[in-house]
Amino acid sequence: MAIVLGDNRYGKAENRLVRVDRDGDEHRITDLTVSVSLSGDLSDTHLTGANDKVLATDTQKNTVFAFARDGIGEIEDFGLRLARHFVGTQKSIRTARVRLEEHPWQRLTVGGKPAHHSFARAGTSTRTASVTYDGAQAWVIGGVQDLTVLNSTGSEFWGFPRDHYTTLAETKDRVLATTVSATWRFSGTEVGWAAAHGTALAALLDAFGGTHSLSLQQSLYAMGQRVLEEVPEICEVRLSLPNKHHFLVDLAPFGVDNPGEVFHAADRPYGLIEGTVLRDDAPPAGPAWS
Amino acid sequence: MAIVLGDNRYGKAENRLVRVDRDGDEHRITDLTVSVSLSGDLSDTHLTGANDKVLATDTQKNTVFAFARDGIGEIEDFGLRLARHFVGTQKSIRTARVRLEEHPWQRLTVGGKPAHHSFARAGTSTRTASVTYDGAQAWVIGGVQDLTVLNSTGSEFWGFPRDHYTTLAETKDRVLATTVSATWRFSGTEVGWAAAHGTALAALLDAFGGTHSLSLQQSLYAMGQRVLEEVPEICEVRLSLPNKHHFLVDLAPFGVDNPGEVFHAADRPYGLIEGTVLRDDAPPAGPAWS
Amino acid sequence: MAIVLGDNRYGKAENRLVRVDRDGDEHRITDLTVSVSLSGDLSDTHLTGANDKVLATDTQKNTVFAFARDGIGEIEDFGLRLARHFVGTQKSIRTARVRLEEHPWQRLTVGGKPAHHSFARAGTSTRTASVTYDGAQAWVIGGVQDLTVLNSTGSEFWGFPRDHYTTLAETKDRVLATTVSATWRFSGTEVGWAAAHGTALAALLDAFGGTHSLSLQQSLYAMGQRVLEEVPEICEVRLSLPNKHHFLVDLAPFGVDNPGEVFHAADRPYGLIEGTVLRDDAPPAGPAWS
Amino acid sequence: MAIVLGDNRYGKAENRLVRVDRDGDEHRITDLTVSVSLSGDLSDTHLTGANDKVLATDTQKNTVFAFARDGIGEIEDFGLRLARHFVGTQKSIRTARVRLEEHPWQRLTVGGKPAHHSFARAGTSTRTASVTYDGAQAWVIGGVQDLTVLNSTGSEFWGFPRDHYTTLAETKDRVLATTVSATWRFSGTEVGWAAAHGTALAALLDAFGGTHSLSLQQSLYAMGQRVLEEVPEICEVRLSLPNKHHFLVDLAPFGVDNPGEVFHAADRPYGLIEGTVLRDDAPPAGPAWS
Repeated sequence: MAIVLGDNRYGKAENRLVRVDRDGDEHRITDLTVSVSLSGDLSDTHLTGANDKVLATDTQKNTVFAFARDGIGEIEDFGLRLARHFVGTQKSIRTARVRLEEHPWQRLTVGGKPAHHSFARAGTSTRTASVTYDGAQAWVIGGVQDLTVLNSTGSEFWGFPRDHYTTLAETKDRVLATTVSATWRFSGTEVGWAAAHGTALAALLDAFGGTHSLSLQQSLYAMGQRVLEEVPEICEVRLSLPNKHHFLVDLAPFGVDNPGEVFHAADRPYGLIEGTVLRDDAPPAGPAWS
Repeated sequence: MAIVLGDNRYGKAENRLVRVDRDGDEHRITDLTVSVSLSGDLSDTHLTGANDKVLATDTQKNTVFAFARDGIGEIEDFGLRLARHFVGTQKSIRTARVRLEEHPWQRLTVGGKPAHHSFARAGTSTRTASVTYDGAQAWVIGGVQDLTVLNSTGSEFWGFPRDHYTTLAETKDRVLATTVSATWRFSGTEVGWAAAHGTALAALLDAFGGTHSLSLQQSLYAMGQRVLEEVPEICEVRLSLPNKHHFLVDLAPFGVDNPGEVFHAADRPYGLIEGTVLRDDAPPAGPAWS
Repeated sequence: MAIVLGDNRYGKAENRLVRVDRDGDEHRITDLTVSVSLSGDLSDTHLTGANDKVLATDTQKNTVFAFARDGIGEIEDFGLRLARHFVGTQKSIRTARVRLEEHPWQRLTVGGKPAHHSFARAGTSTRTASVTYDGAQAWVIGGVQDLTVLNSTGSEFWGFPRDHYTTLAETKDRVLATTVSATWRFSGTEVGWAAAHGTALAALLDAFGGTHSLSLQQSLYAMGQRVLEEVPEICEVRLSLPNKHHFLVDLAPFGVDNPGEVFHAADRPYGLIEGTVLRDDAPPAGPAWS
Repeated sequence: MAIVLGDNRYGKAENRLVRVDRDGDEHRITDLTVSVSLSGDLSDTHLTGANDKVLATDTQKNTVFAFARDGIGEIEDFGLRLARHFVGTQKSIRTARVRLEEHPWQRLTVGGKPAHHSFARAGTSTRTASVTYDGAQAWVIGGVQDLTVLNSTGSEFWGFPRDHYTTLAETKDRVLATTVSATWRFSGTEVGWAAAHGTALAALLDAFGGTHSLSLQQSLYAMGQRVLEEVPEICEVRLSLPNKHHFLVDLAPFGVDNPGEVFHAADRPYGLIEGTVLRDDAPPAGPAWS
């Protein structure tokens, strides 16, 4: 028996990059959190501390900021440029992963007109991307996080098994709320990223709102299915949906009814529903999700 | 010398209340965090543990949910109803404070039309209120929090004193970003709350975006002043503005310039600018802010 | 009617300072979060943007780090040195406030012996201080935060009034848990700070654990009283005690009892008990708490 | 091409369970966060909303609390009991995963003696477990999280490649700090869990403190290796080590040197070093990590 080094990777996480694009007086801003993770021939630094194959994480950070000088564009493209750079220039680096979050902003109205250089953070969701490149192939995963949605009716939950520990009442009308974390894998890298993202996001929302739901699992599947139907370049969707419980408050002790109007929004525990919806001919995922 | 009991208060904090208003098929939702705090003749419970004057915090929670059965309306009004109830029904309670946060939601579009019962959390700011009632008079403070704004130019900082510890360079062009926490005191309680809130919020944003700023203090004053100018019922504005530093990245080591385009958004430390702007004939604040 | 500037202050918040004291091979570390806030003759920068009286917050940060070069000592002393420096060297600054949090570490054992230079974050509480200096007098407030404690019995709650909204059952045995935020004002500045802190902290814990409690208010008063009894230099104690509810789980549906053994620790809402205990001859607090 | 359901699971997350063990007057407390996740034959609920195979997450929560009535014991055993119950009693459930976090407490001293029923949250680390059972075999992963450690010297970083974007200076003496997240896989389930945990934790700390480190990767490997050497029942260790940068502050502008004494503790970005150390004859991991 011997002790050996297994999988490993390293990088600089959560670089907070803001870029201002100045087209004359009219500015645009891009606000990203960028994390780089590299793997390859890194045994030496683990076993002896020899760092000649270790591109410093400080250098990775510099690279992220320097690359932004030439413009960012869509985050999927920016991730591809960075990932290809690291693998392409460092012989010991076999695989690069770049994860990106884009924090949304909206232009302010100032003096009754769209402002040239004033913005407010917006907040219905954060766009994400995870790009992996192994020297030969690139994989792109897009997604959204922190997308909190709620149906105030149109949700039921009944017909579940009742064992010794079951006390939950069946219901034909409940509030269904969740904070969507969704990621989707693209089949290739020749994609109109902005359009794909917008279509996927709209599909998620439309499916969530438009599904009369007998379980959050049913909503999950409908959401994944809709994304696949609407965006042909996407081959696989993964969803993580916390069931943010809204409990109907019992007002009977106070002499009044509660016909689905007053709820307590609970913190913990919460249900957690996770699932994958994919095309049956999806290409191999390789290291895309690892 | 003797040891004595000083100021004290107690209550139930962070009740998470969601109300669904059902006008036929068309629903509206109100999502609040409500905190109650009561003070009065509470020496006994501190000194002997006798609780006959202590309205249980569990009862306070029940009251919040039960009152929501009759509708919430504007949060300032809901707070007034609750505060008056506690003081009016509990002889030992002299003053009630109700703090409210309203978490914003927007209606989803489903199938190309505004959804009847589907919503997404929105996010440019949270509306707040703090209502105090002492049995004779009520004070209402409105506000916003988590309102993050950024000017990508139009901000300077120079002419400051240079002592032994000063290394900061002067600048005629910097990014100015902050997360606004603003509270404003109303002179009375006969106010169109929703309109006042909307006008105050718009005034803050317009003043932030419209001020060519020589210091964040100057922006702060302009923001407070504008709220007072636009909303006559408001007599005092308090602002807390963290200066969320965006540092221009030095790209010279990589052979490129950085003409105000690539920034590092820092977490800590941050500047913190706090100030009050008020009318010189503002009525006494009483316990409103305490 | 005119619009005027009211109270205001500014500074650099949350400077994350770590100092290593090297006595030969044996190191000690001090890990602080330091926030500076200055006030004085600051109308110009608010009204016109003229910054000649505005010591840059960047300079304040530099000063904090530079002063640490000479050693930190007790945080109360470090705060006094900084506060006196700012008021003493800047004519326009009338009052300085320095707030400090000390993050606790403990020395590791390595190879069976106390390590020379290896430490782990410890965690029963964070020591805090807030120092105010106005050019003539200094006020020091000490304290602890994030001190979570629990009594698994020895707590009752009964005899409270029952109104229309009361459903809570009386109890003679409950879990009592809280996260203590305590601050205490010293009468002067000639104090053995470390000993005073240690004695105050021990007094809080001893009083919490040693009080058979009929209400959290009673525990609060006992805790404040004990600190005043044990530390003569302290004249006033302020406590904020969230009642972290532990609800006995009803196991009857599963055919078993629950004799005070299985609890659900709830997040929100929570009770919040706040109070002051002081000596009746405490000197005036001045701006200490503002 | 068809759209199909892929991997999926569901459960109740973050049940906050506190158990009081009462041996006469002497109490002990166990404070857990327990998350359950089940998978199996769950197509129906995704595709049609039929819930006859969906054990409600509310039932899962009830089961966690009810099982605690019989005592918790070591978290690994509690997880095994729960996981076996869900798979053993629900025909449609093929695999159960139970994740547990144990929040540490220490007994208070009251009146000079160890208290019978008074405790304070302690804080050098949280013990974790993840138990997976598939009806035939069980896998147990132990671990720690939130274990923050720091070496104030004995760390170097030099000899790394310098490309176009490298500006970092080499160093022979730096502060090395990290917050350890470690998980370790046991070869079987007949283990003295408490002793194994204590030994593994001590091994991590001893290796971190005792390694003169040329890279955080070298420390990571040493930590994993030491755990494997000290605990024969563990066959694989996974470590995630953020490099919590402590930057030496340049005090030269203020006329003083800084011989490794004054540091700025940065928040973001941070390095992130992740790696696995394992025995070359480790049995297959199966679904343990998935």
